[in-house]
Amino acid sequence: MSRIPRIVILGAGYGGIVTAIRLQKELNYNEADVTLVNRHDYHYITTHLHMPAAGTDKPKNSRINILSLIDEFKIDFVKSTVLQIKPQEQKVILSDGTLSYDYLVMGLGGEPETFGIPGLQEYAMNIRSLNTVNLIKEHIEYQFAKFKQDPHRLDYLSFVVGGANFTGIEFVGELADRLPNLAKQFDIDPSLIKIYSIEAAPTILPGFDQELVEYALKQLESKGVIFKLASPIKECTPNSVITENEEIKAATIVWTGGIRGNHLVEDAGFEAKRGRVEVDPHLRSMERDNVYVVGDCSIFLNDAGNPYPPTAQIAIQEGEAVAYNLVAAIRGEKLKPFVPTIKGTVASLGKKDAIGVVGSYKIKGQVAVFMKKMIDLRYLYTIGGIPLVLKKGRL
Amino acid sequence: MSRIPRIVILGAGYGGIVTAIRLQKELNYNEADVTLVNRHDYHYITTHLHMPAAGTDKPKNSRINILSLIDEFKIDFVKSTVLQIKPQEQKVILSDGTLSYDYLVMGLGGEPETFGIPGLQEYAMNIRSLNTVNLIKEHIEYQFAKFKQDPHRLDYLSFVVGGANFTGIEFVGELADRLPNLAKQFDIDPSLIKIYSIEAAPTILPGFDQELVEYALKQLESKGVIFKLASPIKECTPNSVITENEEIKAATIVWTGGIRGNHLVEDAGFEAKRGRVEVDPHLRSMERDNVYVVGDCSIFLNDAGNPYPPTAQIAIQEGEAVAYNLVAAIRGEKLKPFVPTIKGTVASLGKKDAIGVVGSYKIKGQVAVFMKKMIDLRYLYTIGGIPLVLKKGRL
Repeated sequence: MSRIPRIVILGAGYGGIVTAIRLQKELNYNEADVTLVNRHDYHYITTHLHMPAAGTDKPKNSRINILSLIDEFKIDFVKSTVLQIKPQEQKVILSDGTLSYDYLVMGLGGEPETFGIPGLQEYAMNIRSLNTVNLIKEHIEYQFAKFKQDPHRLDYLSFVVGGANFTGIEFVGELADRLPNLAKQFDIDPSLIKIYSIEAAPTILPGFDQELVEYALKQLESKGVIFKLASPIKECTPNSVITENEEIKAATIVWTGGIRGNHLVEDAGFEAKRGRVEVDPHLRSMERDNVYVVGDCSIFLNDAGNPYPPTAQIAIQEGEAVAYNLVAAIRGEKLKPFVPTIKGTVASLGKKDAIGVVGSYKIKGQVAVFMKKMIDLRYLYTIGGIPLVLKKGRL
Repeated sequence: MSRIPRIVILGAGYGGIVTAIRLQKELNYNEADVTLVNRHDYHYITTHLHMPAAGTDKPKNSRINILSLIDEFKIDFVKSTVLQIKPQEQKVILSDGTLSYDYLVMGLGGEPETFGIPGLQEYAMNIRSLNTVNLIKEHIEYQFAKFKQDPHRLDYLSFVVGGANFTGIEFVGELADRLPNLAKQFDIDPSLIKIYSIEAAPTILPGFDQELVEYALKQLESKGVIFKLASPIKECTPNSVITENEEIKAATIVWTGGIRGNHLVEDAGFEAKRGRVEVDPHLRSMERDNVYVVGDCSIFLNDAGNPYPPTAQIAIQEGEAVAYNLVAAIRGEKLKPFVPTIKGTVASLGKKDAIGVVGSYKIKGQVAVFMKKMIDLRYLYTIGGIPLVLKKGRL
């Protein structure tokens, strides 16, 4: 180990960026070299991506320059793509260089999990990054323009969203808001639009409060969303999805039905389930105690032995905990076990409606919309303080 | 002939809308039944379409509701598509009905002429209507989004404009303005963008003043436009154009190299050259003196026996002359031969540059940009008076 320990953080998603920001606050001068690596020079607010994907919000509103969040005198930022992690050599191979570390934080995020369903990989788009949501937005608008040239192609106006968990439901909510307006803009009869939410489970938002789920179904159906529940997708073609009972023609297919951890984690030799590494109570890999794992690449079990869902709020708390433990490790102090707290969960149903559970309260409608905005503002405050709230926050 | 003569105007382009507006001004109460037929319920400013096509102006700025231009107490408006003209029966078959006429004005506009070049019909887009320019705009933006997923596909960032006459040159000017900004928006290196202007003739803007042509070439080249002159396109494929010497890969191909008259004119049995009917000095078909032809469907010869180019300013003047002659014909008065006057011709080279000839003056740069705006405002004033100038005019 070099005299000054080197910490490398891979990924500036929720877990990675919060780790970096906390480290820069807690570490003393020359206590560690910290390098943050990210593919883009911006952090994006993943839980907002369903909006720019549907075109109901500008992409730049989900995007925060990393250099506006970190202090370059305290933390090095490298914009590069991670190609390989070599835990035995304590090295990370980047597309343009190599980094050595004493401590590694893997916050590389998730990848779509297609469960081997034929065609999903090739023909479905994903809500995963600003680039993929720009593709979805531009693809959707292009279909409207193409329909004007070819008005018998109703599949141009059919939109399939596979998966009815948080992202899928929030996305169909935005689509139901936007597509009728887009139709008007292109002089197209809005009644020709079909929005399908297709889910393998018999319910949307599995695990969510049943009363709220029913409210969400009713509200979204009243906006024209067609639900196909208990209908696993068997195959995806260039312009349709095939379920047990039918083929649904649609030129736009977005898959939100599964997330797995980053393939680099498995490639590096860590024992992983769908790209996710089980971590110890201090958020370290079971195999290597100088490797911390946060966010979609980690599995943290609750007392009953079940994994916490890979949500933004958990990733943020993991980032805080990892920073604490890194500082403690460097100083030779005692690490603190991670204790997540579920503060509240809200799912939007378009711009003016939402459902949520906050503590023991069930909320819906305006109150839930307000609460969602509060959660968003709190996050902005966590990473960027008041200036970021003023710059990116919206009420 | 019925007691009140029936006038049917087909098409609400420059020629048709001006005919209708002049008729509603000149005709007395119950002197004639006038019906204007158009596929859309709006008139569009064809000479502006290169801007929404490139995404440098909103489509709605090129669009004027027809019912805001005509007085429905004086003129009937039918939104429908013309399927067939039957001159012998004096009938017009619409997609949803039939109209009889005593006098017909054919102002059906132009269609792209592909000169039989293989693939152009199938794979090239056209600047022809608001629907086709929306397609171009959405197509272009989609290519940038796709490039981010597939960064080795440089053809996504290559743009071919076939034809370097007015529309082609004005369009590459807008592309050169917009595409670098679009690249920035998608985090793409602008230097990867290629804009090709490909022309069969050895010059751009054939027939235009040579000094101004050289200025235009210089200015557009400085903005990155690559000119391939004296390079007729031999073939168009789904993602390239092939000329004598090379194949240029490009996912976006826009054809502006030829305009012909509407096929309905030939289908109706009129003797036509590329869909255009030669008209007499009063703008009537040589074969039927109750059929007037304006705009892209007409050929009006100058004293030397050469046709005037099918421009907006000629079509507008034709509309005025046709309205005058229709009123004269109905009243049994003497018709007036059409005498076009070329007031001025300005071609834009993007938002901040232009070239033009006004009277005997050559103009370029800011002065030409200003003059183009004046020409645009004069047209708005012609069809809609001060209110339309205030609503749609921009300086």
